[in-house]
Amino acid sequence: MRFTSRTSFDGVLEQLFTLDEIPGVLWTPEGAVGTRPLVLMGHGGGQHKKTPDLLALARRIVAECGFSAVAVDVPGHGDRPVDEEYDRIATRNQARVAAGEELAPLIAGFQALVARRTVPEWRAVLDAVQRLEHVGPGPVGYWGVSLGCGLGVPFVAAEPRVRAAVLGLGGASASAEDAARVTVPVQFLVQWDDERVPRAQSLALFDALASAEKTLHANVGRHGEVPAFELDSTLGFFARHLA
Amino acid sequence: MRFTSRTSFDGVLEQLFTLDEIPGVLWTPEGAVGTRPLVLMGHGGGQHKKTPDLLALARRIVAECGFSAVAVDVPGHGDRPVDEEYDRIATRNQARVAAGEELAPLIAGFQALVARRTVPEWRAVLDAVQRLEHVGPGPVGYWGVSLGCGLGVPFVAAEPRVRAAVLGLGGASASAEDAARVTVPVQFLVQWDDERVPRAQSLALFDALASAEKTLHANVGRHGEVPAFELDSTLGFFARHLA
Repeated sequence: MRFTSRTSFDGVLEQLFTLDEIPGVLWTPEGAVGTRPLVLMGHGGGQHKKTPDLLALARRIVAECGFSAVAVDVPGHGDRPVDEEYDRIATRNQARVAAGEELAPLIAGFQALVARRTVPEWRAVLDAVQRLEHVGPGPVGYWGVSLGCGLGVPFVAAEPRVRAAVLGLGGASASAEDAARVTVPVQFLVQWDDERVPRAQSLALFDALASAEKTLHANVGRHGEVPAFELDSTLGFFARHLA
Repeated sequence: MRFTSRTSFDGVLEQLFTLDEIPGVLWTPEGAVGTRPLVLMGHGGGQHKKTPDLLALARRIVAECGFSAVAVDVPGHGDRPVDEEYDRIATRNQARVAAGEELAPLIAGFQALVARRTVPEWRAVLDAVQRLEHVGPGPVGYWGVSLGCGLGVPFVAAEPRVRAAVLGLGGASASAEDAARVTVPVQFLVQWDDERVPRAQSLALFDALASAEKTLHANVGRHGEVPAFELDSTLGFFARHLA
């Protein structure tokens, strides 16, 4: 793990790093000493580790809860090189949608392929970050919606260190099998008028989670229109389960 | 409006009253002076104006938000006399369910009948309570689930003073038409394994609300098992919309 920059703003220390070839960013409270809860965050499709919504939430997790937060670029995103295999699949999928195929199963297949790489990558990031003195082996949360849900469900299913997860904007065709192995508390976001994920698919993924405590939050609006007040709810959820 | 008792505990003043023949209870911050937001609360079937869950939420609304809260007994409940017409209908409905009829439409019909009395009663309660110096004509919220939703939807649809409502544990067959006239922000509670309200009915009622801002919170569990953390969410919702 190699740190490449270190900046501080409003009490939040931001450190860019690379782990093997994965570019990442770690946020911790300025002057933090000792073990604290950590939230690993997965960005959406076409986004990156410092995409504005994710960055805003990470800073609040650190500033308001005193936790740390970490995010890395998904293969083919952000500072990572173009992935030729993914590009070929994306081009082929666009052609299939143009020819009348359904979008959701194509997204699902693609996310399952990417998850085969991101699950081990994210576990390695947890290993590395939790060895740092100002993060340590505390309770872990996961946050990710849309692509971050498609990759997050298999990650949460595979990683026993995760104690609570915020997921959503994703459908059952992507990850129902993995969902049946998720048993930690989940807060699950649905956009009632989601133009990318059919409503029934969203409800089916929520239904498939094996968690004894799971809460679905559905809001009016399209895929990208999650209301700002859900941020408060997310912070409250992580504070309740990780603090 | 006639006050019949006055007690104070942990900073919350509780005043029992009768308005015409309606027994009610008003909670305000001890020593409150001047206008403040008010939450009118509708109890569930077989419950009453001081049923434990409602009482606990009312006390938190007063103590943590500084608002006032008011609840009255629904006809045939609490300190009100037995209503022979309602009793006859309840007995007949029990027989019809025993003979194999579906429960949900029977509940819906009964709630619509009761709402014809409670909507004008609750509006009169608002009139009376808002004339009190320590309540005043501030913004009004409504909270009610189960029977409190079946009666609450027509009330919120009819009463322009209501600016935000927490509803739920109710289905579309009871109140879809009235729901289409509800335009204020709504937080809507669903129990994912509700044995009394079919899931599709719950989702359909949420869908029918005309509100531009509406959020559905679905939790694992049966009709009576709404998790305690939803109380925090309810308080946050009212604070955001009424303060």
